[in-house]
Amino acid sequence: MTVLHPRLLQDIPRSLDAEQFDMLLQRPNLRIERIVSTGHASDETFWHDQVEHEWVIVLSGRAKLRYQSDGTEVELGPGDAAFIPARTRHRVAWTTPDEPTVWLAIFWTEA
Amino acid sequence: MTVLHPRLLQDIPRSLDAEQFDMLLQRPNLRIERIVSTGHASDETFWHDQVEHEWVIVLSGRAKLRYQSDGTEVELGPGDAAFIPARTRHRVAWTTPDEPTVWLAIFWTEA
Repeated sequence: MTVLHPRLLQDIPRSLDAEQFDMLLQRPNLRIERIVSTGHASDETFWHDQVEHEWVIVLSGRAKLRYQSDGTEVELGPGDAAFIPARTRHRVAWTTPDEPTVWLAIFWTEA
Repeated sequence: MTVLHPRLLQDIPRSLDAEQFDMLLQRPNLRIERIVSTGHASDETFWHDQVEHEWVIVLSGRAKLRYQSDGTEVELGPGDAAFIPARTRHRVAWTTPDEPTVWLAIFWTEA
């Protein structure tokens, strides 16, 4: 009846060629992903420009998000979360190379 | 432009008279809450029976969820998550008294 997602904070890879995306839940208007970064960042010229709203929390590690509109950068550590409205162009400017950065990201659309 | 929720895993109260609910984000069809339990459980006779879908992850501590339909009980530790479809009657059967249990819960409706 229910779907369990066990041990999302264990057995985290420490080194990855590319960021790892694990789809935890996909529903008609919502999806939940775990993302693991090990020093990765978005390409310098790339901006995420999503039709979905996003709420993301860093569970371990450290990261910096940059917003295109005003160039601001926010640093997120464990337990820090950000709401990124749809069509807010942003990129991952940096993730720490010292340990894996584990993100939990919720994406959804509004009717 | 964006809303930040800092330090959701820090300064967690260790003893509470009642469970603590912090609304992190409220949108037309979605809300995100942090819940802190310190040994709390649902009343013995109470069942959550929600019109919203729920996805919940335990970030620290331990908890047991019980489902009414078949009486099954699942234990959740750090990093364990469960998807609880709308109208799935359930209760929190137990949370550890040894440390705070920090939940992150996403509730949403589907069109």
